[in-house]
Amino acid sequence: MYKATIVVRLKQSVLDPQGSAVKGSLHSLGFAGVTDVRIGKTMEVWIHADKETEAAEQVEAMCQKLLANPVIENYTYQLEGA
Amino acid sequence: MYKATIVVRLKQSVLDPQGSAVKGSLHSLGFAGVTDVRIGKTMEVWIHADKETEAAEQVEAMCQKLLANPVIENYTYQLEGA
Repeated sequence: MYKATIVVRLKQSVLDPQGSAVKGSLHSLGFAGVTDVRIGKTMEVWIHADKETEAAEQVEAMCQKLLANPVIENYTYQLEGA
Repeated sequence: MYKATIVVRLKQSVLDPQGSAVKGSLHSLGFAGVTDVRIGKTMEVWIHADKETEAAEQVEAMCQKLLANPVIENYTYQLEGA
């Protein structure tokens, strides 16, 4: 059993309207020092697999097929025994 | 200038319908080994602050006031010079 922690972020060149909205709200609340906000997703996936390499292959395939949109997003992941 | 990486997760006891939906989709795609999926948010916030303690205080206040809902969510953050 492995736990994969996957972080999906918009690519740097892609506009992040959600991040801009949060930045605006933080300014309204008085956090004037905030210069930029970017928002992404964190996914924790528990997988039954015999070997770590097998788990890694599955996570890679999941990211490509469903969890991330490789056109506009980057993803990174970490695996740990669970 | 500091960069805060904030991770907001639903508390363990709170149902995660988005995670359940993703788990179902992964099963449909043939990833039968997936036993659970939990989904959270990653926020990167760049802050002008003189000291790290000052930046940390601001991030703590942001999480309490806007970025997380302490009733149903937990948050963690890391600060690094940027």
